[in-house]
Amino acid sequence: MDLYKPTPGNLLSGISTPDDLRKLKPEQLQDVCDELREYIIDLVSVHGGHFGASLGVIELTVALHYIYNTPADKLIWDVGHQAYGHKIITGRREQFHTNRRYGGISGFPKRSESEYDSFGVGHSSTSISAGLGMAIARDLNKSDKKIVSIIGDGAMTGGMAFEAMNNAGALNTDMLVVLNDNNMSIDPNVGALKEYLAEITTSKTFNKMRDEIYDLLGHLKSAGHTMRKAASRLERAVTAAITPGALFQALGFKYYGPVDGHNVDTLRRTLEDLRTVSGPKLLHIVTVKGKGFAPAEREQTKWHAQSSPFDKITGKSLVKASKNKKQPAPKYQDVFGEALVELAAKNSEIVAMTPAMPSGSSLWPMMKTFPERSFDVGIAEQHAVTFAAGLAAEGKKPFAALYSTFLQRGYDQVIHDVAIQNLPVVFCIDRAGLVGADGPTHHGLYDIAFLRAVPNIVVSSPMDEQELRDMMYTASEDNGTSWAIRYPRGRSTGMELREDFEKVETGKGRIIREGERVAVLSFGPIGNYVTEAAEGLATDGIEIGHYDMRFAKPLDQDLIDHALAGYDQIITLEDAAAIGGFGSAVSEYVAGKGAGVPVHIMGVPDRIVEHGTQRELHDEVGIGPDGITAKIRRCLNIPV
Amino acid sequence: MDLYKPTPGNLLSGISTPDDLRKLKPEQLQDVCDELREYIIDLVSVHGGHFGASLGVIELTVALHYIYNTPADKLIWDVGHQAYGHKIITGRREQFHTNRRYGGISGFPKRSESEYDSFGVGHSSTSISAGLGMAIARDLNKSDKKIVSIIGDGAMTGGMAFEAMNNAGALNTDMLVVLNDNNMSIDPNVGALKEYLAEITTSKTFNKMRDEIYDLLGHLKSAGHTMRKAASRLERAVTAAITPGALFQALGFKYYGPVDGHNVDTLRRTLEDLRTVSGPKLLHIVTVKGKGFAPAEREQTKWHAQSSPFDKITGKSLVKASKNKKQPAPKYQDVFGEALVELAAKNSEIVAMTPAMPSGSSLWPMMKTFPERSFDVGIAEQHAVTFAAGLAAEGKKPFAALYSTFLQRGYDQVIHDVAIQNLPVVFCIDRAGLVGADGPTHHGLYDIAFLRAVPNIVVSSPMDEQELRDMMYTASEDNGTSWAIRYPRGRSTGMELREDFEKVETGKGRIIREGERVAVLSFGPIGNYVTEAAEGLATDGIEIGHYDMRFAKPLDQDLIDHALAGYDQIITLEDAAAIGGFGSAVSEYVAGKGAGVPVHIMGVPDRIVEHGTQRELHDEVGIGPDGITAKIRRCLNIPV
Repeated sequence: MDLYKPTPGNLLSGISTPDDLRKLKPEQLQDVCDELREYIIDLVSVHGGHFGASLGVIELTVALHYIYNTPADKLIWDVGHQAYGHKIITGRREQFHTNRRYGGISGFPKRSESEYDSFGVGHSSTSISAGLGMAIARDLNKSDKKIVSIIGDGAMTGGMAFEAMNNAGALNTDMLVVLNDNNMSIDPNVGALKEYLAEITTSKTFNKMRDEIYDLLGHLKSAGHTMRKAASRLERAVTAAITPGALFQALGFKYYGPVDGHNVDTLRRTLEDLRTVSGPKLLHIVTVKGKGFAPAEREQTKWHAQSSPFDKITGKSLVKASKNKKQPAPKYQDVFGEALVELAAKNSEIVAMTPAMPSGSSLWPMMKTFPERSFDVGIAEQHAVTFAAGLAAEGKKPFAALYSTFLQRGYDQVIHDVAIQNLPVVFCIDRAGLVGADGPTHHGLYDIAFLRAVPNIVVSSPMDEQELRDMMYTASEDNGTSWAIRYPRGRSTGMELREDFEKVETGKGRIIREGERVAVLSFGPIGNYVTEAAEGLATDGIEIGHYDMRFAKPLDQDLIDHALAGYDQIITLEDAAAIGGFGSAVSEYVAGKGAGVPVHIMGVPDRIVEHGTQRELHDEVGIGPDGITAKIRRCLNIPV
Repeated sequence: MDLYKPTPGNLLSGISTPDDLRKLKPEQLQDVCDELREYIIDLVSVHGGHFGASLGVIELTVALHYIYNTPADKLIWDVGHQAYGHKIITGRREQFHTNRRYGGISGFPKRSESEYDSFGVGHSSTSISAGLGMAIARDLNKSDKKIVSIIGDGAMTGGMAFEAMNNAGALNTDMLVVLNDNNMSIDPNVGALKEYLAEITTSKTFNKMRDEIYDLLGHLKSAGHTMRKAASRLERAVTAAITPGALFQALGFKYYGPVDGHNVDTLRRTLEDLRTVSGPKLLHIVTVKGKGFAPAEREQTKWHAQSSPFDKITGKSLVKASKNKKQPAPKYQDVFGEALVELAAKNSEIVAMTPAMPSGSSLWPMMKTFPERSFDVGIAEQHAVTFAAGLAAEGKKPFAALYSTFLQRGYDQVIHDVAIQNLPVVFCIDRAGLVGADGPTHHGLYDIAFLRAVPNIVVSSPMDEQELRDMMYTASEDNGTSWAIRYPRGRSTGMELREDFEKVETGKGRIIREGERVAVLSFGPIGNYVTEAAEGLATDGIEIGHYDMRFAKPLDQDLIDHALAGYDQIITLEDAAAIGGFGSAVSEYVAGKGAGVPVHIMGVPDRIVEHGTQRELHDEVGIGPDGITAKIRRCLNIPV
């Protein structure tokens, strides 16, 4: 495929690596920034990608590579979707148009991709911990490389960032944390820290107090000598006390800022100064997400990332709306979001929470309809789960919406605060399975394995949106246990939906079709691939059995017995790690019986799977319709 | 068994519930505290138990129950080992001598035990999240109950406490956080926060500045009218600016304190005042861990908990030292601790870290021998793992020592920062399996299941201390993957140890004995129970096979094939959840082959297992020697 590549500007075209950048004069840097920004807008307007975050740190990116001796000095980008500029000026401009595509470069920094990517990221709040590890390694090696972690104000609310600051402040090693304050996560940032930073930057309290005191000090200075002396001492004391950033200073970091993150000259000079300041220090810069692209500056959540082409001036979509085009099926996340509002209308005890993903999890309908019962708790998965447990302990029915990959952050809380106390929290686990372009850090592959080992939790997955609604309803009425309902990124089947809800019998699957010799037991929407494969095989006269198992725990043992009685081989299928998950549950049961029927587990193999579209990845690992067909044929010794 | 119960003092004997306490006069409270303290010292001196933390909060416990209308008002004790006083005055004095014993009351607050235990705990840093959930439930219910979370300065370093503060500060609901500042976790507390709190309480900076400024203001006030007016305004501004607790104020909490946590009258009056202050607020109290028991005040780590009887005045052990007594076998944790020092002496890249458990994990030898290569990062499991990953990314060989139950907190970081990047971190997982008296919150049951699903990690467990040393050595030389080595709480076998290290072949088990019909495949030290059972069965003429599998991942498929070829039935045994773990791995393999040999998984069943000694719990769930023997007999249809 011949993909569009923008033409770089004059300066940018000469920058293959940061060495080239560092040969430029300081006064040329703003032009580099302008060209880099234009390059990204041009490229994303055609190919899509993360967007707002990278535009916001163009000046920072250029200033950092100009001042620091990368790759010897280490830059650690938190989350990493702001690293487009970094990638383009560190040798990857020519590949950058393959960003997030199958076989192309990653949307996030990645150690295996470039020596300039000192630490792989994707999840938030890891950069200070990783940077501290590198700083200590540097100290032990008696080297003098510099370490810079760049973290957003949203990521700073994640608990592990605080843990790292607390440790770094005490270890007192040399490192710089750049706090990129744009007042946004993917959605608007929330929490007390946000308000604290706003207070510093808008200077309401601090500046008012400072002005008032200096005014008085002026009075004093015009008085006699003793007064002047007193005033000087007072001035020093007061200045120390009312410096903004007391929060960070309390954690042992020297605080600098706030400075304008879009003035590359200021940034360059500030970083140059800070390079010579030893110990842990924090530079607070203020930026605008989407800077330089007017539509993105206006609507920051919408423009966090874009997947389809748009006009690079107006931002208008270039995808033609066709009148006759069939309405696409709703996304699973939207089916969840709407069903939740309907259930909450019926059951006033229902409350909902998301750790900073109201858009991604489609919690907005709930937040609009029942604002007092909906909580965006910030990037804080650990807190989100225990907060839900606290609500459940007082009789509420919490629906906690988390991505599978982020629930990994709240795993201990699921065990310690929900399962051990058997509190009826419902976990709606979005982005379960291979997620596509976001790649390995975001695939949701382990939830079945890590949840089903724990008592007091039902582990379910619907095959379609009707089942999703019915499972949510069933979970909402079940106060005897906690529930996990997992569903993937992307669109549902588009089926006609019942308006009302019906209960699903817990631990019971359903028969989709019966056949002979091979039965496929599927878990979740990936079962629709089996339907496709089975229909294809049927045209060749091969009739297989297919059961939608619905539950990985409790397992429908009757249905498995039924399969064991009627078929020679069993294939299990799940969009999750093949180890320890649904297929493993079936294997435990079948092996326990000593049944001589082979159980073939189909799932994501035991290796790191990279990025691409979901379908490309499903096909790569052999769990797409073709892979399923081939597997069945192999089982039957029929040539593929 | 007739267990010793202390005789309560006059006042304490009249307190069955806090209602009785609340009938007393304020001036009687100190006497209640004294009696309560004596009762606990008396009891623990005979029965053992957590100790230091409870003695430190006697006054707080009495004051809280005196002022708040428990159980309608909610007290949430963070971690919970400080709740002995709370339990004794909330209806459990008569049962308290069964504390931490099999069938007795729990060493931690527990919802199922008492309506006064509003939230179960055991792990640190959960109380603000849970309290916030309860506060929001209260708001939604338009009730007026009060919510108080009591958290130590150590637990405050856990990231989820920060996440909760950030959320609570913004939600601005009514709740009180009592920060119990005793400058200790189990080990001395570490980190920048500790230093910050010390600065407040020792008042070096704050008080000096305050004094200096007030001194100047005094000067000004003696001057003319304008000056006096200016001085007043200045005083207000300065007071606001230099109040300690800016860190907490930055997070939206009103800060009060520091106050003396051993003056029950001050506490009572302060709490009474704070009861009427709305919104999120933090009361900083200063206490001494072990208060009132001189030996515990002096050596706080040693006296965190005691397991054997001691003199209640001098603290001297009442267990008689016998000259002829055989030296007990070393604990697994100590074998780890010593082997680590030996390995670190050979390999200068080895570094080690613990999240606030240098004593529990026996990291002290390493910290003493190689202080610059050893890190206590505070109660911060998420950070600990990524900090290790950062060190590994720069070529170091990190040994991260964590309890199994606490590694649950760093699970996402194991996946995201270690496994995806394939960094060679070695996780030494202590307290794996049923841990005994600490009970359900501390059992380490899920690590095999949650780790083996993830690529790029070896999951191993030694059957004895020689294997532990050899596995550590093998892992230290393997830079191609990360390793998990799990071992239990308690003593090793006491075997003679080789001085040198030998490599273990990764993914290979060993044959302990061969027999017929039934083979037991064991994973970890619990295999020693099989040896015991096999020897017993052999005296009855029953010869079984027994293999020490060593690795749950990669699995020794050759050895399993060998078992399948030679035996009719396979039993797998592990000290971990029976779902998803080692037995599940064997089942996946055996079911995949369609071998008609039944695989019986023996492990911890799918329910919450309470506290007791490890042996009592192993026997209860059927994985002790008797349970193994009975299972084998049942498999062979031989009467038990």
